[in-house]
Amino acid sequence: MEYRYAPRMERTPRSFIREILKVTGQSDVISFAGGLPNPDCFDTAGIRDAAVAVLDEEGAAALQYATTEGFLPLREWIADRYRRRLGLGVSPDEILITNGSQQCLDLIGKVLLGAGDACAIERPGYLGAIQAFSLYEPAFVPVPLDDEGPAPDALRTAAEAGARLFYGVPNSQNPSGITWSGERRRAVARALEGTRTLIVEDDAYGELRFDGPALAPLRSLAPERTLMTGSFSKVLAPGLRLGWCVAPPEVMHHLVTAKQASDLHSNAFAQQVAARYLAAAPIDEHIGRITAVYRRHRDLMLALAADLLPEGVAWTRPDGGMFVWLTLPEGCSSMRLFEEALRDGLAILPGLPFYTDGGGDRTVRLNFSNASEASLEEGMHRLARVLVGQLRSSS
Amino acid sequence: MEYRYAPRMERTPRSFIREILKVTGQSDVISFAGGLPNPDCFDTAGIRDAAVAVLDEEGAAALQYATTEGFLPLREWIADRYRRRLGLGVSPDEILITNGSQQCLDLIGKVLLGAGDACAIERPGYLGAIQAFSLYEPAFVPVPLDDEGPAPDALRTAAEAGARLFYGVPNSQNPSGITWSGERRRAVARALEGTRTLIVEDDAYGELRFDGPALAPLRSLAPERTLMTGSFSKVLAPGLRLGWCVAPPEVMHHLVTAKQASDLHSNAFAQQVAARYLAAAPIDEHIGRITAVYRRHRDLMLALAADLLPEGVAWTRPDGGMFVWLTLPEGCSSMRLFEEALRDGLAILPGLPFYTDGGGDRTVRLNFSNASEASLEEGMHRLARVLVGQLRSSS
Repeated sequence: MEYRYAPRMERTPRSFIREILKVTGQSDVISFAGGLPNPDCFDTAGIRDAAVAVLDEEGAAALQYATTEGFLPLREWIADRYRRRLGLGVSPDEILITNGSQQCLDLIGKVLLGAGDACAIERPGYLGAIQAFSLYEPAFVPVPLDDEGPAPDALRTAAEAGARLFYGVPNSQNPSGITWSGERRRAVARALEGTRTLIVEDDAYGELRFDGPALAPLRSLAPERTLMTGSFSKVLAPGLRLGWCVAPPEVMHHLVTAKQASDLHSNAFAQQVAARYLAAAPIDEHIGRITAVYRRHRDLMLALAADLLPEGVAWTRPDGGMFVWLTLPEGCSSMRLFEEALRDGLAILPGLPFYTDGGGDRTVRLNFSNASEASLEEGMHRLARVLVGQLRSSS
Repeated sequence: MEYRYAPRMERTPRSFIREILKVTGQSDVISFAGGLPNPDCFDTAGIRDAAVAVLDEEGAAALQYATTEGFLPLREWIADRYRRRLGLGVSPDEILITNGSQQCLDLIGKVLLGAGDACAIERPGYLGAIQAFSLYEPAFVPVPLDDEGPAPDALRTAAEAGARLFYGVPNSQNPSGITWSGERRRAVARALEGTRTLIVEDDAYGELRFDGPALAPLRSLAPERTLMTGSFSKVLAPGLRLGWCVAPPEVMHHLVTAKQASDLHSNAFAQQVAARYLAAAPIDEHIGRITAVYRRHRDLMLALAADLLPEGVAWTRPDGGMFVWLTLPEGCSSMRLFEEALRDGLAILPGLPFYTDGGGDRTVRLNFSNASEASLEEGMHRLARVLVGQLRSSS
């Protein structure tokens, strides 16, 4: 039978990460390709105790249908943490619990993006956002990213041309690892003044900051204009599939409608387990342990890059998150590097899928959170070997 | 700030159930309005043991990112159960695990429905499907439902006019409680022969059958044409948010792409808990206990209807599922009945949101699974009292 599909399916980029994860299933391949947290950082015992307490004390109520907005104590915890950590005032009514923060991007696309609408996004931009938004058939408008953040002039031009939203990751950006400076955040907010462009502030990595204090979120600079997403995947565990979206009340009303049509509500059991865990756990200490591990991994990767990588290769110095971003010298190809590295037992992620307008063929994203320190060291040696070979053959 | 939304948001019907659940939160209101399973039927202890075993034995692996398709042992269990229960051959590769079967409807709409595409649906049809599909802006084509199932001629006409899909609930339909006869199932399959219309067979209630053997699913009659959805909400617990979609391989490829863009994957922890539970539990006995309770509730509701409801009110006699469907005599209004019943401490669901073309203003859906037997009895007395009053005032 010949099947017919909606036109939106033609616009969905093939998932590079999905294809890569297939080839990296073999245990002898060291992977810098994914974006997985380190499983040693999961508090499995604590989550087990919380699950037992929820089922013993709440019984069947923990397993019934629940509200679309999400479990209120969990939303209260999130609001409270924003207040304590960032001095940010968010009401629990402005928080919707989602199946990981990826679902926020789907719901935001659903509510805000009509076919052909302009959608501004960092260049390079998070590929999960590109995938989610693509299904709503927007016209992407890339906003160049430098070491301080996105270019305010390009953003202003996009907004004046009618961009419905601007999506960005101000803290330890995916893929580049860059954190927007305080000044650039204010410039972004100013650039959008008087326009109707919303900001989608993806804060997946804000809790994973290694150096310096937290910077003001866009939500605090432009509260009416900003939707903010968060995730428990990095600080608790991705398998619980719990994220959230913060939105002004009027937009929240529509997000809740879209969420209900999409899947009624998020996993009620997982929400109660998370809320129970967070109420009891010393969360600052737990996150402190995670950031200590990731900081050590970052330091190791950067030191090995300086020691081993050939001249002409540049990289970012992330102050948090999970990723280092490489730029290869002229004449190199990240796709060829990907293929050659894989033959040598190393998976990397070529930067191409982070670009909505082509380009990026000399960029590579490296993950430092998931691999062990021994694997990080061996992987960087493999990377250096393959890079040196590629540079030799291209010169 | 004045917000702009995608045009699709204007087409989304207001959720009646959501509004009703708000007013029925008070504990003195008896609710026949929702579609909740009976919490006494949840095996909370069994799920607790499965959760402990998963975390103790799998550790961090139970909490990491997972595949978009879903946990393989759970998909294998579903395939095996189809084979044992229905003699139906389905490969685990044809099964995608979703956040409840509601998400299947969203993904199916995303993959198959472009704006303006014809989408055939039973009349009355499940409101969750109407909501999910509405966001993809189809033109609904209602196919009248009689006691045997949907009208084949009307379906054929819709298919010849280019309907992309036909959505129906062959077993214990929501809202009517009707089960399509075996002959009508074959007639539906025949009516679509030679057309490109797909069948979306929502089988949320197939396991909850009280009388007689299971009937052949559409998937067995037209395998290439049929997408089939299933749910653990009715036989395990809705709070785990686990459903699934069966689809031919080519369509499955696109569903997986859409699922990944929507939320990466379903809750990994809940999937492993469910798989662990199902591997150990005597599931036929467990489902037997649920159907025994629901059969008793149905019998009670039907007996009370015969005893108490005034002349001129008609109702269906469901052979499974959760719902009885009332048709009120001329001159009655289900919306007025809703308001009057609520004042008397009873929530019912007016049938209007199950119609995509208006109509249904003398129909009412009654849920018999959730309330206790004592509440069922008291609720039916309240319903009779209000109905008698309305008939008296309209005559």
